[in-house]
Amino acid sequence: MRPVAVYHGGVFDRRIRVAELIFRFLISAAALLAALLLVTDTQVKQIFTIQKKAKFTDMKSLVILVVVNGMGAAYSVVQTIRCVVSMLRGGGSIVLFNKPLAWLVFCGDQVMAYVMVGATGAAAQSAAFAKLGEPQLQWMKVCDMYDSFCTQVGEAIATSVFATATTIIVSLISAFTLFRLYH
Amino acid sequence: MRPVAVYHGGVFDRRIRVAELIFRFLISAAALLAALLLVTDTQVKQIFTIQKKAKFTDMKSLVILVVVNGMGAAYSVVQTIRCVVSMLRGGGSIVLFNKPLAWLVFCGDQVMAYVMVGATGAAAQSAAFAKLGEPQLQWMKVCDMYDSFCTQVGEAIATSVFATATTIIVSLISAFTLFRLYH
Repeated sequence: MRPVAVYHGGVFDRRIRVAELIFRFLISAAALLAALLLVTDTQVKQIFTIQKKAKFTDMKSLVILVVVNGMGAAYSVVQTIRCVVSMLRGGGSIVLFNKPLAWLVFCGDQVMAYVMVGATGAAAQSAAFAKLGEPQLQWMKVCDMYDSFCTQVGEAIATSVFATATTIIVSLISAFTLFRLYH
Repeated sequence: MRPVAVYHGGVFDRRIRVAELIFRFLISAAALLAALLLVTDTQVKQIFTIQKKAKFTDMKSLVILVVVNGMGAAYSVVQTIRCVVSMLRGGGSIVLFNKPLAWLVFCGDQVMAYVMVGATGAAAQSAAFAKLGEPQLQWMKVCDMYDSFCTQVGEAIATSVFATATTIIVSLISAFTLFRLYH
């Protein structure tokens, strides 16, 4: 038998669960958008007779960002479904929750939040090098050459920052949901 | 009047508080070490008649890492002192804790954890570029030239990763400490 805590949640609990559902849906959408913006981003440049094509695979940190955002989108879709199912099963204001599930959700959210912060931080750093160059190291500003490619990368990183911030909020909600079971 | 919850904590509570104290002390030491490793890191290279000097200020992400580790060390020293004071005042197994303080510690820990993950991720990305180069963008491997400088940067990043991981653990402890006050 799993330890199952059943209690009648109040207005506050209901609001938290609705907020969690909305946030998780937003993360799914934003992470998917960020990944798509990166994958579809290409720019071809003609230099005399040589054709050069910029793709997200040219920069490892962008590949990592695509993978992390793809994982984040898939994870958040699963979690959104879980939220809907648990709200439908709970019915009205009655909240059904058990500790093993709360631990699972908590761990998943923590991992996703930190992985997304790390990947977005690294990609933002790469983008800063591409945009501003690093004169001390003779790294050139590749964005001067691939302007529209860089703009779309910037949009993808901004979307990724939004998804990351929302993931942090959700990870705080799941921490709250888990730890209040202990007193 | 602030709402103050007084209860007699068991062996589990005492262990958590001792663990928190040890972790916070470790973060102070590791973050300080990482900052010092970066600040003291220099290498001079003679290229024909030109003398070139590598410093951490040549790369913005390393400057950010120094600042973040410095902040992390200062914050953790303050928190270590708070832990000692609260253990001395609490005396034995009696735990004195109030919600506003728990919220303050929780928020500070969350901010530090995410800032450190972001800064360490960005610095690790820069280090990867310096070590491996990015042939597609014609960014050269500067570590081939400044080998001992790069080795010390690597040590600083490793120390920073340790400090970051410990900060994440501590942030989970403070989340647990706060949220169990709600039921």
